[in-house]
Amino acid sequence: MTNRTVRLARRPTGLPGPETWTIADEPAREPAEGEVLVEVKAISLDPAMRGWLDEGKSYIPPVALGDVMRANAAGVVLASRDPRWKPGDTVMGGMGVQRLACVRGRDLEPIDLAVAPFERWLGVLGMPGMTAWFGLFDVGAAQPGETVVVSAAAGAVGGLVVQLAKRHGCRVVGIAGGPEKCRLVTERFGADVCIDYKAGPVRPALAAAVPEGIHVYFDNVGGEILEAAMSLLARRARVVICGAISGYNDFASIRGPRNYLNLLVQRARMEGFVVWDYAARYAEARADIMAGLADGSIVAVEDVRHGLDRFPEVLTLLYTGGNTGKLVLVP
Amino acid sequence: MTNRTVRLARRPTGLPGPETWTIADEPAREPAEGEVLVEVKAISLDPAMRGWLDEGKSYIPPVALGDVMRANAAGVVLASRDPRWKPGDTVMGGMGVQRLACVRGRDLEPIDLAVAPFERWLGVLGMPGMTAWFGLFDVGAAQPGETVVVSAAAGAVGGLVVQLAKRHGCRVVGIAGGPEKCRLVTERFGADVCIDYKAGPVRPALAAAVPEGIHVYFDNVGGEILEAAMSLLARRARVVICGAISGYNDFASIRGPRNYLNLLVQRARMEGFVVWDYAARYAEARADIMAGLADGSIVAVEDVRHGLDRFPEVLTLLYTGGNTGKLVLVP
Repeated sequence: MTNRTVRLARRPTGLPGPETWTIADEPAREPAEGEVLVEVKAISLDPAMRGWLDEGKSYIPPVALGDVMRANAAGVVLASRDPRWKPGDTVMGGMGVQRLACVRGRDLEPIDLAVAPFERWLGVLGMPGMTAWFGLFDVGAAQPGETVVVSAAAGAVGGLVVQLAKRHGCRVVGIAGGPEKCRLVTERFGADVCIDYKAGPVRPALAAAVPEGIHVYFDNVGGEILEAAMSLLARRARVVICGAISGYNDFASIRGPRNYLNLLVQRARMEGFVVWDYAARYAEARADIMAGLADGSIVAVEDVRHGLDRFPEVLTLLYTGGNTGKLVLVP
Repeated sequence: MTNRTVRLARRPTGLPGPETWTIADEPAREPAEGEVLVEVKAISLDPAMRGWLDEGKSYIPPVALGDVMRANAAGVVLASRDPRWKPGDTVMGGMGVQRLACVRGRDLEPIDLAVAPFERWLGVLGMPGMTAWFGLFDVGAAQPGETVVVSAAAGAVGGLVVQLAKRHGCRVVGIAGGPEKCRLVTERFGADVCIDYKAGPVRPALAAAVPEGIHVYFDNVGGEILEAAMSLLARRARVVICGAISGYNDFASIRGPRNYLNLLVQRARMEGFVVWDYAARYAEARADIMAGLADGSIVAVEDVRHGLDRFPEVLTLLYTGGNTGKLVLVP
């Protein structure tokens, strides 16, 4: 059997381009003892991928040169040498950007297509869903009646943060780029207000939208938007650091919020997290999100693109504001 | 009776100078109903004073032009129209930079000179003491066996943080300016290591001193030292934002830590606080500090200067590294 893979050819400076990757056909590997061969049906494209391309210490080692690009994915078991799995089982896990993945059976989770299609298991029921839920409720400790502000509010994580916060009785202000995304954030996700950061300076619009200040700011972007939110914190606010997509393609440009001393003035905290730390509690979050999907208080928006060969260009959509909702590649 | 006062004449840019203040004799005010006239015996000089001179929203309104400079102070009651106090009582509270203070009796606290002299009630038993204790144990949640790093470790707050952390079973690394201060921090305060930030770059020295990373960083200074500490956080570290003295005289120069995303990598938090929020629990902290003074595990170092007229020059010692321990002015 032939596998098509996307491997890291060279480390990018700035936005990754076609030269970053080698896309080629190669023989599929036979599963060894404990391994499973999976036909990949959907690949999750995530902002964090950019960070995995850079050398240096982070919360995870970088992707090695020549390796298949790391990615969460979902698919169907073709062959198994792990008693947990049999051909035809549907699974998800870290299978990489390729058509056929040969991975350890113990690293996979079952998914139920009767509950949701492949792409949704990579979105609201997958890592982005867990990230939104634990970031908002555990790190952010959002309480009913509080004002929650979230950036990248039309994205996979931000869009769910908006909906979870509304479902939990919060007042919600989203920040997104362009009128279409803002309509999605208010009309489909239910935010009370959405600020279009492309339409003008964020600070005054945000100030007008949060008369009582911000209790929880869920930050996916960093930069000036983080600084604007930091200037409008309520007493004992929580700033949840989930990511900083505005700086991922130019790490040297990342600046800390100049007004971080506002944490002192407002007795506030800024806290980072990595969703994997919550693995033991995923079921709790997933049950809540499934209940929301069932009662209509949560809608899943996925942006599904097709063609493994288009991975290089589709990935860059994440960094140019080109996707809406969870970005998934069907190989 | 004649009172000598230090009033704010103009708002400084940069370091306050003689032109910032008006020092003059004026008739002492008679206490009104509920007020007390106090002879000021010791005035607390604190880094936060610089912030009180600037216009703009903060955790406290700025000192108004023409007002007596705000300060904590301790003294002896001369006359009282509040039933709580009688002449001869010793008290502390916000009495300002002057020789005779006419203040509301309800804003004063009693102090016992048999326990400690005036200056100590403004130091380890006063606001700096409370700031160190609640910052370290409540905000920082320092645990025995953890590594605590504190900047301005020869200062009023930092010096007590060192001693409290040692008393609590932590490994402690201080950062201070110059060999004399560093000797104080290790030999008298008991830090395991003290890094002289004037002797070379802090980052490599700090990295060598914290092989397991930093669990609690108590920041009094901001700037590059904050950034160095942020780069060496252990998993689930707490960064306590107590102040940022390096930027107080040039707010426009304040930068956030460029590496704030390390909060995410290390699942760490950065949190600010204002000591007044803990007023209801001061007795708890004071009892612990008194026990430490009694058993010798805490030593109080005060830097006492004399002469109300010298307030302008003595104040600047705080911003030039010129004082060691708690800076107190005897008017």
